[in-house]
Amino acid sequence: MLAYFNGSFLRKEEIRISPDDRGFLFADGVYEVVRAYGGKPFKMAEHMDRLARSLRETRIDFPGVADLAVAGAKLIARNALEAMDSILYFQVTRGAAPRKHTFPDPPVPATTMILISQAPSSAEMREKGVGAILVPEFRWSRCDIKAIGLMGSVLAVQQAREKGAEEAIFVRDGVVTEGTHTNVMAVFNGHLATHPLGNFILPGVTRAVVQELCRKIGIAFKEQAFRGDELNRASEIIITGTNKEITPVVRLDGRPVGTGAPGPVTRRLQAAYSELVRG
Amino acid sequence: MLAYFNGSFLRKEEIRISPDDRGFLFADGVYEVVRAYGGKPFKMAEHMDRLARSLRETRIDFPGVADLAVAGAKLIARNALEAMDSILYFQVTRGAAPRKHTFPDPPVPATTMILISQAPSSAEMREKGVGAILVPEFRWSRCDIKAIGLMGSVLAVQQAREKGAEEAIFVRDGVVTEGTHTNVMAVFNGHLATHPLGNFILPGVTRAVVQELCRKIGIAFKEQAFRGDELNRASEIIITGTNKEITPVVRLDGRPVGTGAPGPVTRRLQAAYSELVRG
Repeated sequence: MLAYFNGSFLRKEEIRISPDDRGFLFADGVYEVVRAYGGKPFKMAEHMDRLARSLRETRIDFPGVADLAVAGAKLIARNALEAMDSILYFQVTRGAAPRKHTFPDPPVPATTMILISQAPSSAEMREKGVGAILVPEFRWSRCDIKAIGLMGSVLAVQQAREKGAEEAIFVRDGVVTEGTHTNVMAVFNGHLATHPLGNFILPGVTRAVVQELCRKIGIAFKEQAFRGDELNRASEIIITGTNKEITPVVRLDGRPVGTGAPGPVTRRLQAAYSELVRG
Repeated sequence: MLAYFNGSFLRKEEIRISPDDRGFLFADGVYEVVRAYGGKPFKMAEHMDRLARSLRETRIDFPGVADLAVAGAKLIARNALEAMDSILYFQVTRGAAPRKHTFPDPPVPATTMILISQAPSSAEMREKGVGAILVPEFRWSRCDIKAIGLMGSVLAVQQAREKGAEEAIFVRDGVVTEGTHTNVMAVFNGHLATHPLGNFILPGVTRAVVQELCRKIGIAFKEQAFRGDELNRASEIIITGTNKEITPVVRLDGRPVGTGAPGPVTRRLQAAYSELVRG
């Protein structure tokens, strides 16, 4: 595939990350994942806004976010992916400089990379639902920054996969925060609850879309945290994200959620989401 | 400088990290820093043991730790650094595979890299002491793993530097844990206290050396946590690490520590350390 690296379009195989890149040495970088439906990036502006926010919060000096959006769109065309769903991966790091914790002084240019791939189909997971496990939170407390330091998520989701589950959901001091790469919502007495924004969860783009869809189709959406042990009385659990879209969790720690099948709130949201993105 | 990458010796400039490397995409890797005094690596075995532990804890499958130690020693000779102090940087990541949080399946070979550089002199800092600031802990809770996901440390130490200090010291729930790249010790009534081992601090190699030196020269060493607000009655504060060795903190948050000059416990430990490493 053609990719984008530091201002140039080139084949992914030609990209050479420096051994001094602070992304490689310190996880000193941020990222975004954008899904394009039939060649059309969904919520690109929102993702780029969040990228700009991540850059500000981590004080990575990179003014070219708008250019990245343009380059991302070009990658779809230049890879002839207009007719299908694709995934754009954007990464910006603080650049390459001999290893030293403090910011490079004098500053060095940020490293920018965009990779593109065909989107894996999420249809089966959306249709049948997936399993999830609860794991104690052990990541940092700035989960609102979409940073590339993801080892905690990697270890947690691997643990899930080995237990036959798709996602690991973090519980911080008893409270459910988010999944390793999804936001988490639960239906209690017909309303949809999810952890409030703040430094413990990513402000998910799909989460915001769901909030908007709830308003439209008349589902009560409450930014209200719930405890892990309250989930046994949730009638539905949903994980949301750019890749997972709106996916029902039908087994939690091996036990069925609600009836053990995707519920009515999930189905209504999926239909509305599908209409929005696939027209 | 000649470096080492995936089994080969090559110039650092020739190293090409894959854009798919999980070290670059997920901070899915671990590292070690070893100081060589006059060409002789100090506590190489202890560092390699810790590297092996980090690999086990993160489930990165790499059986060649012993080979890395040999390659590191070779780099000193092949770069003609036998007569001076140098720093060996070892990094092992879970390898390169298309981006997906779970471990690559089938597995891919780990990425291994060793960089070498001349050691910066720590003499002035050790002699005069440095400033430090206290910052609220916001990193993950597996600080015992020497993982490359260091953005939290980067942001904290940068904040310190901008306040004219050398190190940022983390305070978790009121309790002092460690610095961004050092262990932290404080002298109370003549004894040296430091946070006990566990998941909140790195099991520092220099920390262990200090513990041993204390036994030898008759300083009481207590693995006993202390609160940030107790530090105003510490007569001395010390940060320890491979690079910082035994460095006195003489200003904390802008206020003098003890007399504002390096104290007697620091000086005794420095002398013993110097004798140990420099003969």
